Amino acid sequence: MLSVFSDDHFMRQALKEALVARDAGEIPVGAVVVCQNQVIARAHNQTELLRDVTAHAEILAITAASNFLNSKYLRDCTLYVTLEPCVMCAGALFWSQLGRIVYGAADDKRGFMRFGKVLLHPKTQLEYGVLMEECSTLLKAFFQQQREAR
Amino acid sequence: MLSVFSDDHFMRQALKEALVARDAGEIPVGAVVVCQNQVIARAHNQTELLRDVTAHAEILAITAASNFLNSKYLRDCTLYVTLEPCVMCAGALFWSQLGRIVYGAADDKRGFMRFGKVLLHPKTQLEYGVLMEECSTLLKAFFQQQREAR
Repeated sequence: MLSVFSDDHFMRQALKEALVARDAGEIPVGAVVVCQNQVIARAHNQTELLRDVTAHAEILAITAASNFLNSKYLRDCTLYVTLEPCVMCAGALFWSQLGRIVYGAADDKRGFMRFGKVLLHPKTQLEYGVLMEECSTLLKAFFQQQREAR
Repeated sequence: MLSVFSDDHFMRQALKEALVARDAGEIPVGAVVVCQNQVIARAHNQTELLRDVTAHAEILAITAASNFLNSKYLRDCTLYVTLEPCVMCAGALFWSQLGRIVYGAADDKRGFMRFGKVLLHPKTQLEYGVLMEECSTLLKAFFQQQREAR
């Protein structure tokens, strides 16, 4: 049976956020935090708007989810993010003791997996490659357009 | 000649911030960002107050410094922080392309140096051990008091 609450479904929500970022001229990365099949936080990369390197989608999503739950810890939550988190975001996810991470496209250059799962909390489950093509295509098209605009 | 603008001087400013954290019941870590011998940002750990694991002194200091300079990059800045940054904060400092990091006490359990300087931007200079005893004693006393209060 096809569940409404599939990883694909929630990754599509994260992709929607990535599109908001793209339309604002930001590197198109989006994230949602899900708890008991409910989206409790949505965020997209805002490093340009806020002129703040810490304003990655994941950091903003963690902060928003913690505000929503009034809890520092996100043990029962899943973060869906369109791109493999960087080291900073993996470190933040470690501290949040997040239940599960699902990411779409890989980031061989800046992703945390260069160092391996050791950067995550031992209790955090990890999945990747969900809607990878769509997540990756969105990023590639953005950078292609950036190059052409120069 | 003794300069007013020594590492010790600025680490004392960071220690002042750490005391503010301690008095608020937060793990006592403080940071300042210095640019051209001027303190342009001060911050202390606020993870309890904000119920947000990302609210480390360094992250708040980077955001405040970027706001002050209206720049994502902090290439001409030095961050003074009383404790060795964690992986999340090292990742944030990488993105900021910070000119120089000076930290006080080591953090063998959670510090980024478990992975080495590879987590920092190649142009970021690193120094540590400045007022190490004072920075470390403050943390030890805090945790001792926490244990006794249980």
